[in-house]
Amino acid sequence: MASVAVLGAAGYAGAVAAALLHRHPEFELTHVTARSDAGARLDEVHPRTRVPLELEPPSTDLDVDAAVVGYPHGASAPVVADLVERGVRVVDLSADFRLRDVATYERWYGEHPAPALIDEAVYGLPELYRDAIRDARLVANPGCYPTAAILALRPLAERDLIADVVIDAKSGVSGAGREPSHTKHFVSVDETVTPYKVGGHRHTPEIEQELGGALRVTFTPHLVPLSYGELVSCYVSPRGEADFAGVMRDAYGAERWVEVVEGPPGMHEVRETNFCRISLHVDEWTSRVIVFATIDNLYKGTSSQAVQNLNLMFGLDESLGLPA
Amino acid sequence: MASVAVLGAAGYAGAVAAALLHRHPEFELTHVTARSDAGARLDEVHPRTRVPLELEPPSTDLDVDAAVVGYPHGASAPVVADLVERGVRVVDLSADFRLRDVATYERWYGEHPAPALIDEAVYGLPELYRDAIRDARLVANPGCYPTAAILALRPLAERDLIADVVIDAKSGVSGAGREPSHTKHFVSVDETVTPYKVGGHRHTPEIEQELGGALRVTFTPHLVPLSYGELVSCYVSPRGEADFAGVMRDAYGAERWVEVVEGPPGMHEVRETNFCRISLHVDEWTSRVIVFATIDNLYKGTSSQAVQNLNLMFGLDESLGLPA
Amino acid sequence: MASVAVLGAAGYAGAVAAALLHRHPEFELTHVTARSDAGARLDEVHPRTRVPLELEPPSTDLDVDAAVVGYPHGASAPVVADLVERGVRVVDLSADFRLRDVATYERWYGEHPAPALIDEAVYGLPELYRDAIRDARLVANPGCYPTAAILALRPLAERDLIADVVIDAKSGVSGAGREPSHTKHFVSVDETVTPYKVGGHRHTPEIEQELGGALRVTFTPHLVPLSYGELVSCYVSPRGEADFAGVMRDAYGAERWVEVVEGPPGMHEVRETNFCRISLHVDEWTSRVIVFATIDNLYKGTSSQAVQNLNLMFGLDESLGLPA
Amino acid sequence: MASVAVLGAAGYAGAVAAALLHRHPEFELTHVTARSDAGARLDEVHPRTRVPLELEPPSTDLDVDAAVVGYPHGASAPVVADLVERGVRVVDLSADFRLRDVATYERWYGEHPAPALIDEAVYGLPELYRDAIRDARLVANPGCYPTAAILALRPLAERDLIADVVIDAKSGVSGAGREPSHTKHFVSVDETVTPYKVGGHRHTPEIEQELGGALRVTFTPHLVPLSYGELVSCYVSPRGEADFAGVMRDAYGAERWVEVVEGPPGMHEVRETNFCRISLHVDEWTSRVIVFATIDNLYKGTSSQAVQNLNLMFGLDESLGLPA
Repeated sequence: MASVAVLGAAGYAGAVAAALLHRHPEFELTHVTARSDAGARLDEVHPRTRVPLELEPPSTDLDVDAAVVGYPHGASAPVVADLVERGVRVVDLSADFRLRDVATYERWYGEHPAPALIDEAVYGLPELYRDAIRDARLVANPGCYPTAAILALRPLAERDLIADVVIDAKSGVSGAGREPSHTKHFVSVDETVTPYKVGGHRHTPEIEQELGGALRVTFTPHLVPLSYGELVSCYVSPRGEADFAGVMRDAYGAERWVEVVEGPPGMHEVRETNFCRISLHVDEWTSRVIVFATIDNLYKGTSSQAVQNLNLMFGLDESLGLPA
Repeated sequence: MASVAVLGAAGYAGAVAAALLHRHPEFELTHVTARSDAGARLDEVHPRTRVPLELEPPSTDLDVDAAVVGYPHGASAPVVADLVERGVRVVDLSADFRLRDVATYERWYGEHPAPALIDEAVYGLPELYRDAIRDARLVANPGCYPTAAILALRPLAERDLIADVVIDAKSGVSGAGREPSHTKHFVSVDETVTPYKVGGHRHTPEIEQELGGALRVTFTPHLVPLSYGELVSCYVSPRGEADFAGVMRDAYGAERWVEVVEGPPGMHEVRETNFCRISLHVDEWTSRVIVFATIDNLYKGTSSQAVQNLNLMFGLDESLGLPA
Repeated sequence: MASVAVLGAAGYAGAVAAALLHRHPEFELTHVTARSDAGARLDEVHPRTRVPLELEPPSTDLDVDAAVVGYPHGASAPVVADLVERGVRVVDLSADFRLRDVATYERWYGEHPAPALIDEAVYGLPELYRDAIRDARLVANPGCYPTAAILALRPLAERDLIADVVIDAKSGVSGAGREPSHTKHFVSVDETVTPYKVGGHRHTPEIEQELGGALRVTFTPHLVPLSYGELVSCYVSPRGEADFAGVMRDAYGAERWVEVVEGPPGMHEVRETNFCRISLHVDEWTSRVIVFATIDNLYKGTSSQAVQNLNLMFGLDESLGLPA
Repeated sequence: MASVAVLGAAGYAGAVAAALLHRHPEFELTHVTARSDAGARLDEVHPRTRVPLELEPPSTDLDVDAAVVGYPHGASAPVVADLVERGVRVVDLSADFRLRDVATYERWYGEHPAPALIDEAVYGLPELYRDAIRDARLVANPGCYPTAAILALRPLAERDLIADVVIDAKSGVSGAGREPSHTKHFVSVDETVTPYKVGGHRHTPEIEQELGGALRVTFTPHLVPLSYGELVSCYVSPRGEADFAGVMRDAYGAERWVEVVEGPPGMHEVRETNFCRISLHVDEWTSRVIVFATIDNLYKGTSSQAVQNLNLMFGLDESLGLPA
């Protein structure tokens, strides 16, 4: 049984990763670390996890086979590099190794702290890179919005069916993290919808990369008054004619965790699961193709997908320990 | 003091109209009617209104100077026609007289029950048709989504700056009406976002008409878990260059009820007011122009706008009795 | 592997029971029935269940070893009686067999449709009646409020420590059922708290029975704007002195599904689990003992508790297939 | 026209007070102050107020006739004392001058910073102390919970009809203030109910004082997932018999801002108004008298009540400028 640590386990994503790994039949969760809550037990900070491990201060000196790193971008890369050097196989939840082009990274995030590792990092969307993930030492877990948007659009992009696309995303507040702030205060969020980082959200280049790199994408996220879940509404100006719905069904017919459905995909249907649900509509009036996709931002959008990646990296059934 | 009736006052919009008119310094609310709640007092059905009038059974035989009609489309037109014939000046909250082209109406709604009146009906968006509203016998109050979308886009459309536009709208549940249904059950709405009438919402032709008629608009509304308020996120592919922000500021500099702001416009800021708030962003990455607008769907989106129209029709200060 | 049917599977509780049994390692879910949605598949009506069985019209002519009956009180008893006569072991989710005194039943509910079965029905709170449940043909699954209130108060009641008690309960809207109504409309529930059935909720006698029968209990439920979860705040005027916290800890030290905690018990912590969380505070100022308990009304409050009961009835590990 | 300042106008309560006074026909709002947001305009920090005044740094050197002080307890008293000495008439929103017994204050809050002023401060519940408020230099505005609880219970307490009482309160999150914290994070509040300060909330002695001082009150507030509004559920063990409902109706028959109603009082009905709504039920089963009361915690619970007090202090119609 492989041993695994979760670094940064006091955040929402880290806590979910720890909870899943603590119950996983083939991993043993041996360490959880946290900056501000070190000394407390994880089930005191996040009772729902029911993980009775003590949060240790940040460290990479951990005798483990694998690690999930839940640090902010920039802070993550040096820690990841250190772990990889020590022979630990890593799933990095940050953005640091998602972009294959270092110039693109630096345009959106600033100087890269460990560019040498970029080449060997594998983008951790199992539905696209299953084989490469199996052999990876370092998996860059996708962002939550990119997970939904890429799963929604990639089948069309691969067939060069997208001339242009607008992505209007709606996310629950857990996507903004656990740190208190005015924008996450209940009274600020309740009974309103707030677009944010308009024209400049850092998930944009990640989506563009995985759609082939040639397309500039308009991506605008909105904060909605709910806790967990994400919907991307993708408005595609198609290039040419096709059986768009058929393309989508074919792409995911064999995928356990992607459900292509009729009607609105729904957030209840994916909550606390590893599912992504997709529906596609052709708007006869404007000839636009509209694709909706929902995920739970902390599960398929982050932490259950991290476990899916770990399963692949350790030769296990990809779905082991994933919540359905 | 002009006397006024609200027909269909047991619905959300009718109740707000009645509440505003009951407190209005220059109108006297003398009759409220309702189908299912007739016999009850309005303040029993909608206590917040604090209107102690008894709901009467539906009738057009009312001795009043003006009427606000809050009936569903199709049902509204014959009642409106009857009232106009009796010399009552009418603000119709339904869609029946909003579309100037009867063929367009019939494509989206079915046979028109009173086409003869279409020509003289004035589209009741005061910021656009103030002068015509003053003389109108019949004002077709705009739909809630069109109110926000048209105010957001018309200044660009008038200058022919829109090559294409996608409108992604988010609405609170009161926009779906008071009648109980599975889709309005708290458990269905809470913690999810639901696109509906994808590619076929009947507010589409109304928006297109007021943007000049030449553009086909992609319009997709989403139900969000909140009660009151509406946000339209408009993604414009611009035709040519312009000082887009300047165009917007100039268009509304003299308008009391339209606020052009920086940052997200917000629903709290417009709740239970007649304000529409607009913000405009140019996305440098894709050159798209993104316009956001918020309104309270029951106020500027319906009933306070109806009062604004009545004020104009009766030669009063346009803002009299409007909630700020 | 025992076969099991869920009757009334289109309601919230029935759907959860079906979902749990469909994934249960030792039961085979072979039939689901529903009145209004017959013909549809359960995963169409309740996609989150992911149970691909077709809903059959109501029937008791089912070749199964066990049944969970999710009918309203009154309607349930004849169906239950029929099933028991056919040799099917039944967990009844309704109130029909919870009260051991037929006169009490008839005071609160009206005439009892099958009084002959009352004597052999076992009250299905495993923490209290584990042994009797093992041998039962008919288990009366507790109401959701009673589950929380009895678990919160029984340890004190057993030691005769309660002189008087006020129970103020707060429940999510799923507790009110799936049928649309004005009171469950999103706009009615959002941003308010509504006491209901004040001084007359039918869960009162059930709580009184399980606290020993001598105490009259003030029980007032409130609808709060959330979907799943229930909190009971129990204000006990104690009879005599005791180590109240110690009594509570001792009562549940060996119980897997009851967590005695410090601080507010929380609804997140029990959501979609079989846990009940309890905390006890002694108010030094007034000498009152205040006990809080939370459950998920559809899990420990109804359907996962039904599965816990089925496990006992079929000689299985009590916790098999229960969500943690 | 009297000039007035609001000190601490960046908090929720201060902002509402400023908004009401800015539109008040007989007061001129001339200064707003704030610690952390000084330099910004109030309508930037709280756009809904639409008050275009710049927030000044904290100061008591203000040439005004009156001031509303929105500081935390302890910090408020010295500022209030300074203002009173300068001849400014003050409504203090803090707890510093609400308790007439300094020993009681010090038991619950610690050392009193300005005990000399306690004697002349008037408790600012107009329905009880209207005449004294008219002449006061210093009015101690009641806490939000006490406002609702005292209005609900005082008519019974005055007739010595209360042997014992449990108050279970439910409050929206704005009651906890604007400062970000984990407990006010949207994700912490959404989909749960949280009792807090169990057996030790500092509003307890204030309620006890105004019920006559002889009764020890069990008071337990709960945080519920909504922004504005407060419900107190008061469980009275009555002393003797009476026409309880009649007592309540008689007490408030002449009060404009207290509505005695049948059925649940509702938060929607009082939102952004100065109303308190009360309903009373006699539970035949236990002989308890249950009184419910709702207010908007920021209006009748704080800031519109402050304006009501200012109106009285300046000889104006008590209801001038109050939102209905």
